[in-house]
Order: sequence, then structure tokens, then C-alpha cells
Amino acid sequence: MSGIVVQNIARADAAVIDGLAHCGVSTVHEAQGRTGLLAPHMRPIYAGARIAGSAVTISAPPGDNWMMHVAIELLQPGDILVLAPTSPCTDGYFGALLATSAMARGCRGLIIDAGVRDVRDLTEMGFPVWSKAIHAQGTIKATLGSVNVPVVCANALVNPGDVVIADDDGVCIVPRAKAAEVLAAAQTREANEIAKRKRLGDGELGLDIYDMRGKLEKMGLKYV
Amino acid sequence: MSGIVVQNIARADAAVIDGLAHCGVSTVHEAQGRTGLLAPHMRPIYAGARIAGSAVTISAPPGDNWMMHVAIELLQPGDILVLAPTSPCTDGYFGALLATSAMARGCRGLIIDAGVRDVRDLTEMGFPVWSKAIHAQGTIKATLGSVNVPVVCANALVNPGDVVIADDDGVCIVPRAKAAEVLAAAQTREANEIAKRKRLGDGELGLDIYDMRGKLEKMGLKYV
Amino acid sequence: MSGIVVQNIARADAAVIDGLAHCGVSTVHEAQGRTGLLAPHMRPIYAGARIAGSAVTISAPPGDNWMMHVAIELLQPGDILVLAPTSPCTDGYFGALLATSAMARGCRGLIIDAGVRDVRDLTEMGFPVWSKAIHAQGTIKATLGSVNVPVVCANALVNPGDVVIADDDGVCIVPRAKAAEVLAAAQTREANEIAKRKRLGDGELGLDIYDMRGKLEKMGLKYV
Amino acid sequence: MSGIVVQNIARADAAVIDGLAHCGVSTVHEAQGRTGLLAPHMRPIYAGARIAGSAVTISAPPGDNWMMHVAIELLQPGDILVLAPTSPCTDGYFGALLATSAMARGCRGLIIDAGVRDVRDLTEMGFPVWSKAIHAQGTIKATLGSVNVPVVCANALVNPGDVVIADDDGVCIVPRAKAAEVLAAAQTREANEIAKRKRLGDGELGLDIYDMRGKLEKMGLKYV
Amino acid sequence: MSGIVVQNIARADAAVIDGLAHCGVSTVHEAQGRTGLLAPHMRPIYAGARIAGSAVTISAPPGDNWMMHVAIELLQPGDILVLAPTSPCTDGYFGALLATSAMARGCRGLIIDAGVRDVRDLTEMGFPVWSKAIHAQGTIKATLGSVNVPVVCANALVNPGDVVIADDDGVCIVPRAKAAEVLAAAQTREANEIAKRKRLGDGELGLDIYDMRGKLEKMGLKYV
Amino acid sequence: MSGIVVQNIARADAAVIDGLAHCGVSTVHEAQGRTGLLAPHMRPIYAGARIAGSAVTISAPPGDNWMMHVAIELLQPGDILVLAPTSPCTDGYFGALLATSAMARGCRGLIIDAGVRDVRDLTEMGFPVWSKAIHAQGTIKATLGSVNVPVVCANALVNPGDVVIADDDGVCIVPRAKAAEVLAAAQTREANEIAKRKRLGDGELGLDIYDMRGKLEKMGLKYV
Repeated sequence: MSGIVVQNIARADAAVIDGLAHCGVSTVHEAQGRTGLLAPHMRPIYAGARIAGSAVTISAPPGDNWMMHVAIELLQPGDILVLAPTSPCTDGYFGALLATSAMARGCRGLIIDAGVRDVRDLTEMGFPVWSKAIHAQGTIKATLGSVNVPVVCANALVNPGDVVIADDDGVCIVPRAKAAEVLAAAQTREANEIAKRKRLGDGELGLDIYDMRGKLEKMGLKYV
Repeated sequence: MSGIVVQNIARADAAVIDGLAHCGVSTVHEAQGRTGLLAPHMRPIYAGARIAGSAVTISAPPGDNWMMHVAIELLQPGDILVLAPTSPCTDGYFGALLATSAMARGCRGLIIDAGVRDVRDLTEMGFPVWSKAIHAQGTIKATLGSVNVPVVCANALVNPGDVVIADDDGVCIVPRAKAAEVLAAAQTREANEIAKRKRLGDGELGLDIYDMRGKLEKMGLKYV
Repeated sequence: MSGIVVQNIARADAAVIDGLAHCGVSTVHEAQGRTGLLAPHMRPIYAGARIAGSAVTISAPPGDNWMMHVAIELLQPGDILVLAPTSPCTDGYFGALLATSAMARGCRGLIIDAGVRDVRDLTEMGFPVWSKAIHAQGTIKATLGSVNVPVVCANALVNPGDVVIADDDGVCIVPRAKAAEVLAAAQTREANEIAKRKRLGDGELGLDIYDMRGKLEKMGLKYV
Repeated sequence: MSGIVVQNIARADAAVIDGLAHCGVSTVHEAQGRTGLLAPHMRPIYAGARIAGSAVTISAPPGDNWMMHVAIELLQPGDILVLAPTSPCTDGYFGALLATSAMARGCRGLIIDAGVRDVRDLTEMGFPVWSKAIHAQGTIKATLGSVNVPVVCANALVNPGDVVIADDDGVCIVPRAKAAEVLAAAQTREANEIAKRKRLGDGELGLDIYDMRGKLEKMGLKYV
Repeated sequence: MSGIVVQNIARADAAVIDGLAHCGVSTVHEAQGRTGLLAPHMRPIYAGARIAGSAVTISAPPGDNWMMHVAIELLQPGDILVLAPTSPCTDGYFGALLATSAMARGCRGLIIDAGVRDVRDLTEMGFPVWSKAIHAQGTIKATLGSVNVPVVCANALVNPGDVVIADDDGVCIVPRAKAAEVLAAAQTREANEIAKRKRLGDGELGLDIYDMRGKLEKMGLKYV
Repeated sequence: MSGIVVQNIARADAAVIDGLAHCGVSTVHEAQGRTGLLAPHMRPIYAGARIAGSAVTISAPPGDNWMMHVAIELLQPGDILVLAPTSPCTDGYFGALLATSAMARGCRGLIIDAGVRDVRDLTEMGFPVWSKAIHAQGTIKATLGSVNVPVVCANALVNPGDVVIADDDGVCIVPRAKAAEVLAAAQTREANEIAKRKRLGDGELGLDIYDMRGKLEKMGLKYV
């Protein structure tokens, strides 16, 4: 089942991807019907990064980062590496050397349901990572995995070429074929939120803006 | 049992509240006999905030933030929202829109034993949150909860109007009626610590300042 | 078994220790054959610190920091406190006062498989701590422990006088007697990495630098 | 705040308590509006026990079981010990000796948000315990706590004399004053469930019994 | 995205399914190349059950079990319910009533990445459940989910009609289309293991049976 | 550092070992001054086993059980396998085949800070295991580890030949050289407990037996 490398994958339109990055994880997640979100244990190694890109997926044995090297060759500018270990692992699969190599190919970041190391270097390089752990523990190169096959990463299905959006709120996956449609919905939502935010900032209440008072009363809410 | 909104709650004196903020969580916690501390999983979304305010409490169903809107209407300047879900939950109940609305009413922050989202926006807005998780997962508005009833939040009892103190060390609750007394004890403690810190900084040892050597010897401590 | 304080311990050479700090945890861990790493739950209270020093070890009862005071007297400039509780604990054993005292004796930091508090003060003072938790909960002074005995801290054995290296990647222990040898290996490794990093940054692939293609093919990797 | 022992507490009617035991945790929890449930980490040390009794509460320091002895003197037949540590702890506060003493006074079990030991003996004795951990780690007798004061145990408020119900589903607290009313509601619910269970066992569907089809359709559920 | 119920799904051959049950999770998991295993937090509510069946999948909101009722109508004899909440949840979605209804339709068990309750009843009924938690906390019926759509459950992808195998070792998913092929591989493996087990029981060593000594020596293993 | 197999290790006296098994983990742990206890996440795969034996230690890479085979050859009747992975891992290193082989050599059980599988078979065979997880996930045979070197397992130091005691309360390690002395202390303690248990069962209170009333009063305990 493992030992497969898919060389050519379809990617979403670059402008669509960048638009999704701008909207951010929470807005995109809402815009696609609250699907595609990775588990909340996936945290950024430093605050403030907000990226989107095409998933180059890696299915790797626990504690074995050999497939990282295979995947890096397949990276195109704008891609994001997504690694799912085949069993739970916190080892540091990735550090400054691999990041240097990935950046040289235009990679925008790494999503890994395992560990990462050299985080000070990665921070200085501006290479963002969302991971389950930070751990200096190294990995080996002994067993094959696969590259660009569908993986389940942190409880979310990721197909190669799907759009990955990641920021301080976590990581969300948008299926490639729906990327444009989701972007449109996200932008609508964003525009709508700007207007609402203005009204809320002026002191209007959500109770009134969303017309909730009647419904709450009908449900039986009692003010005492 | 749910579906109750208490509109008027008593609050502690504003100067007392601000005094408690200045003392900080660890000092206040000691000053009131090591009670009122929330569990250590409650962490700030950004470092450096130090606040105190009156608790406006929310008991909410898991994954349902409807009562947030009800609570916000009841906020007075200097209040802090405290949300306890009725079962364990990491969903993002609160984001930039609700923060905008809460800030417009003078709210100083949010304590939530669940998730929060839009943390980059919240950080930029300077709206501090102490939470169990950061998660983009949205919530619904389907079931009633209660506002300004006693809640258990992160293993601590919080009554509406209690003083909430929160900083990088966590979150502590001071019963409203004891706020002035606790502040006095905290300030005494703080003054005492400044003096001790001076002596320790000059190289004196805790063993001598606290006169521990005799007691340690009597307990049987052996230097080898 | 407890109640023992070893006053004189051997320490590694200061230049060796500083050399190990410069190499960092991940490199040192690799250089000594991937041993000595503490569990990944040990996290720094602020980013960016990178230290090394000689371990002054403390075995302490849960929730009892009495031995901290005993240990501080034994500190020499360049030492690092390492506290292992005798059962799992998140209480805040250490805060600004103890840090002031430890700094006055030249202590470089604290490694504690339990909690710490006053983290804002510690950050301002530049006193780094790697801990399992941040918690305002105070401790008592009722029961003896030991100082400068071997301890198991966060799943790693630490002997007094061992070299502790700590940075954003975690904490690693180098046995005192092997410190010079490990430093040499770490520096070799570091030099080697600089060269590799240059090549990877120029776009060469790990697949080629490490000559992996043949081995991968032999293992059965299939490009499709 | 600690060091208080309340000797006389009110208890609910014995028949009401036994009735609640018979209904079980899940039914009682529903019957009182889904309140009073302890966190799901509270697990029985052996399967099959189902008890109810009056809470004799203990607030104890982490790793200190002195107050257990104080509490046992206050036990009356039918009581249940409820221990909440003042900070997170997994130490084994309670074993065969204390269980022997508690059983001699008619105690029905122990609820402890910490550890327990001698679980084989306790199982043989038929003394049920719901705990956060099983751990051989012993405790000390050095610091005062309190007995029969309100405590927060595993995220639930427990007042002395409240009715504790515990079975394989967990632990639930019923305020003493509401015990009779909750029992009546629980028994109604139970009778109702017996009827429903018969119909479901005969192959009728919940969709029809609860008349859900119309509502689901209106909400937009699509069968494909 | 939600609100979809797929009524007709393809199922694997009944004899193949029963054969997979007999082989058990660990053997099947090996036989299909170590894929399809759910996360280790999925534990049986009682020991000794070993089942296989066709997955009827449910995607449900956190704390909302409405779709259970919809799914039960679609059950055929030999099916297994698989519920994945759309965000992390420990609430008790399922108890004795739903189990009665599911058993009446021939359901063999439930796999749920959330909570379950009435576990004593379920044990007595012989209805096995593998879950993340046991919790009395009830759920609501307010929001739509979907039935018989692909879900990610406990970090594994499950398509409706896939074969679910569950026993004391956990839960494994075999894609429907590969069920016969995997069964054949599992049976071969099982036969092989019986032979090996005989030899090992007679005192032969794995080192010799698998001819490992030479390879270990070549790798550098040193006997001292 | 790895790749070492120590063939001959010293073991404690068989009668001493069996005596320690009879005393059980909690008593032995107390008798040796509350040292040597493994972390509470180490749980038995079935209830009721109580064993002691000599540690044959294994340091193994994560997800690699090759050294198990090497260790089994070195087993003598009465030994217990103790496996510590070099980084956190839940994979199933051990199942029915290895247990058959180990039992053929007189092995009494396995202590593993990782996963185990085939637990139904192991239960039927009466081969007890204390582990961190139950997981069907298999392991590989690619990298060397070491056998009979000192290891840190679940936060406790284990030297080869140390006495391992394991029962429902967890796992405790007694250094070989102290085994006889610890047994004597444990037996004294046990005898003492039998007498105390009789008195407590007859209704005497710990408060009186241990003469605590005066000390509690002096500490300030207030009965109200």
C-alpha cells in the first residue's frame, strides 16, 4: 500500500489560493460548511503566519522522514508539505536543513501531525510550521512511505493538490475542485463581517442585529 | 435549570478591582489562602496581559454560543466574561465580532473553558482571552443556557460579580465580598516581597532569611 | 532515601559547556547518539533562550519546594537547577523571589518537571525556565527531599554535574564525563550542516546529496 | 480558609437516596436538567457498582491525606466520601486500611479527583471507588484541609450532604434539597423509558415514536 | 455539506465479513499493509467482544445525536454504526434505548469517536461499543448531520459499506472492495502464525526462525 | 550508544523476589522509601495479576521491536521484560507470538512504556502486561537498540537484574542489591498493617490509633 510517489498533481488557481490565505482559517472553514478543519492540537511554532498553498502530502512511518526528501523534489512554488505519520508520533521529522531545501523550491510551510525541531532557526527563516509537538528527537530513513496519496492528517482528509490554509487559528483543508466556490463564499462572508463589525463597534447588539430577542423569548429565556 | 438571565448583579469597588489586577494572580491567590485558582490548562492567547474585572458568567451548552449575545448586553465597563460549557468542548465560541461588541461595552477580556478563534485579530485589538483551546470550529445558536448564575469554570466556582484576575500565570477568582480584604492582604504580601527580593538579590539566602537551617537539621537533612 | 544533600559535585569545563550551548539541543542530541533528551512536554516559558550549564539536581516531594532553598546555596555561576518531583505535579514551585536568589548566585535557568509561576517577571528578568506547566498554585515547605542526587526528570536520567542544554527545541542532558567528546562531535556535525545547508539552499536535493535514489528504488519505491 | 471541620450536616431521606441509586447516573442526570455531572475522567476501579449516598466532603492539599482520617470519624451509614485536592494530583490518597475504617462506619464508597491504591483489595472488599488515577504513590499527613465544606470535585460543585450517585457511567451530584423532586422526575423518566424500550425492541423506530420525520424534512434533510 | 442521507449502500459479502471478524483486528491490519487502524484512544466498553460488519456512517454535530435515529432506520442485519463528531466531544450520544433499537435491526455494535452511556445495560445486552469516553452527559436533537457519507473517525477514513473489524486490540477499517483480498491475506497470515506459534512454544527462537543473527551482526550488534 | 547486548546479569534471590510479589506494589513502594514507582499511565491489560521478577531491559527505537527477539534469548525463568522506547510511542511491539516465545523461557510478564496487541490472547494465556497503550499497530525490525543496559521506563530508572514488582496498583522497581532489605521492611510493614486493619475493622479510628488529635488541634483544626 505504501511506496507510491505520484509525481503530477493538479493544483488550484494561484489567485484563488492567495485569496483563501487572505480570508484566513476561521472564515474559510465557515464558508465551506464547517468541514476540513484539523484537530486543535495542531499549533503554529510562532505566531502571526498566515499562509495558503497546494498540499503535497506525505504518508510516513512513525519516526522515519525519508519520504520528506522524496516529496521536496516534487514541490512547486506555493506548495505546502502535509505529513501524516502512520501511527502517533512526536519525533522531530523536520528541521532547518529540510526547511532550507523546501524554501529553495518555493514551499510556503509544513503541516505535520508529529514533531518538528530547530524551531528557532525556522522562526528566523520565516518558515512556518503547524505541528503536534516540538521535539529534538531525530528520525531515521529505513522504511518507505508514500507521497501525494490521500492522507488523514490530524483527523482531516487531505488529498494531494487540496488547498491548505493555516494561521493562528489552526489549519483547514479546501478540496481543490471547490476552491473557487469556497473563496467566493468566504469573501462574501468577510464583506458581511466587516459591516457587522462596524455596527457592533458602534454599540449595536448582536441580539438586535440578528433579531434574536423574539426567538429567545419563545424558547423560554427568562430575565430576572 | 437553564434559561435564566440575571440582569442585575453586584460588583466590587472599581479601585479594589484595579488593585487586584496590579497585584497579579500568584500574589492574589496566596493572599486569599490559595483558593479560587482555575486549572492550569487555562492559558492566555498572547503573553503580557494582566487584567481584573467583575465576572459576568455564562453557562452554555457545548458548541452553542447563543448566550454570549445575551451576556454582552449585560456588560458594564470593567466586566470580564466567564464562560463554562456544560460538557467538555474545544469549539471556538468567540471571535473578532463578539470581541468588538464586548469591547464596545467596556469588557476587559474573556475567560472560557473551551475554544476561541480569530486570535490574531483579538491580539491586534488587545482583547485578552484565557482559554482551554484555540480552534476555528464555529458554534451554533440552538439551545438556551444561563447568564449570571453560579458556574464551575475550569474546576473553580465563579459567582456573578466575583472579581476575576488573569495574567500570564493563569486565572484566579476572588469572591466579591472578600475583595477588599484580599486586596489588603495582597498588598501587604507584595510589600513584603519587595523587601525580600532586595535581600535575595543582594545574595542573602532564603535558608537564612526564613531561618530554615535549624528546622531542616531537626527534620534530619544530611549534608554530605 | 531522601534528606541527602551532596555539597560538592564535579562540573564539566566551562568552555565545553558554552560550546554545547552554542550548538543547541538538536545538534547535541544527535551528536551523542540520540540519548539524554527530556520528554516533549518540557517547554520554555518564553521563546529564544539557549543555555547550557551544570546540573544541580533536586528531588522534591509533590507540591513542596523546600529543597529549592537548600539547592540555591550550592549553586555556582553557570549552574542550572533541575527539579524532578517524586510524583506527577503541576504546582508552581518557583517564582520571582527564588529566581532573584538563584540569579544572584549566577544560575542560568531552571528545568522543572512541574509548574512555575511569575512568568512575566521571569521573562523580564531574563531567567529562562523549561517546565511542564505554568501554574500560580503555591507549594509548601514540610517534607525533605534531596539535592545533588541522581534524578529522573521528564523521563531522562540526570546526574548532578551533568551538562544541561536547553533551547526552543527542548532540553538535553550530556553526562559530564562525555561533555568534551560530545562537543567535538557536535561541532563536526554543525560544520557539516553548514555546508549541506548551503547546497540545499542552492537547490541541490537531499536525494542527490545523500545519494538516496538507488536505495529507494531498490526498496521498491514507485514513481507514477 | 482551610482547617475547618463541620461536624453536623443535613442528609437527604434514606429512601430517596436508595431510589436515586436504583435509577442510576444517566437517568438522574437527565432528570435534574443535565446538571451535577463530574468530568468523564472519573472512572470506577471495577465495573458493576451502583451506589448513592450522602456526601461527606474533603478539601485536601495535593499528596496529603490527613483529612481522610478526620472525615472518617464523621461518617454515618450510607455516606460517601468525596475528596477534591486543592491542585491537580494523582497520588494514592486511599487504600485498604482507610477503606476498612470507612466500611466499619457504613461508608458506601469514595469519589476522589486524584489517585487510589490497593485496588485489588478494594475490589475484594466490595468498596467501590471512582477516581482520576490508580497509583501506588503514598501521601503525607502534614497540612490541614477541611471537611464538610463546599468543594469543586472534577469540575462539579459538591456541598456536604448532597446526594452522590455513582455507577459505570460516572458520578452525578444531586443537591440535598432537590433530592426528592429529582427522584420523582427520574422515576417518571425510567417508567417512560421502559415503555419506549419495549416499542424499540419490537422494531418501532425512534423516527416514528418521537415523530421526527416532519421536522427533519423541514430542516432540509435529504434522502438520496 | 451536511443534511444528506444515502439510503442504499453496497456491502461486502457476509462470509467475508465473518471471516475478517474471526481473524481479528491485529491480523487484518497487518494483512492490508498496516492501514485503516483507528487511533488507540478507541477502547471497548467491555472486554472480549470481537465483531465485524458493514459501516453505516454518521457525521454528527458535537453533542447532537439526532442522526443516530436516521441511521438506525437504514441498518441491515450485520451492520455496525460508525459515528464521527464534527468537532471533539465526549458526550454520551448513545445508550440503552438506541442500542435496543439498533439490535432490533440486527446491528452488531457501535464505533464512536465520542462518548457512550448506560454501559452496564449495554454490557448486559451484549451490545459492544468502542468509544473515546464513557460519559452520562446527554445530547440534543437540533442540527442536521449526514448518514452514509465518508467520515474521518478517530483519524481513519471510513466509507459507508466498508468492513469494520473491532476487538480488544481496537478498530480497523477494510475498504469494501478489498475485503475478500484482505481476508485471504489475513487467513494466510493466520495459518502461518499458528505454525510459528507452535515452534516458538517449543522453545525455538525468533532469532533462528526468522534468521536474524547474521543481519544483526552485520548491523553491528555487540554481545558483551 | 546503542547496539549493545549484555548477556550475563546478576539477579536477586528467587525467594526474595517471590516475597516481594506477595507484598505487592504499594507495600513495597512504601517499604523502600517511596522510590522506584513507574508513572501512573502504566496499566495492566487485565485485572488481578501480581508478579515479581528480574528485569531484562530493552532500549528500543520507536516502532521497532527487533530487540525483543534478542532479549528473549537471554530470558531465564522468573524474568520480566522491561521495554523503554527511545521516544514516545504507542505502537504494539508485542503480541501472542512473542508472548509464546517468552513464556517458553519462563518469562513472567512484560512492562512496556508503549503499546501491546493481541490482548485477548495474552489474557487467555495468562501472560500479564503493563503498558501505556493497547494498539494493533505493528512494528518493524530495522534499527538496533540495546538489551540489558540501564533504561528509563515510564519515568523510572531500571537496571538489568533489578526486581520488578507489578500488580493492579502499577509497577515498582527495587534495586537488586537492596531486594532482601526491602523485602524485610515490606514484610514488617505488612504485619503491622494486618494488626491495624483488624483494629480499624473493629471501629477504632485512625485519629486514635495514630494519636493525631493533639497534633491536629495544635495545627489549628477547628471543629464547628
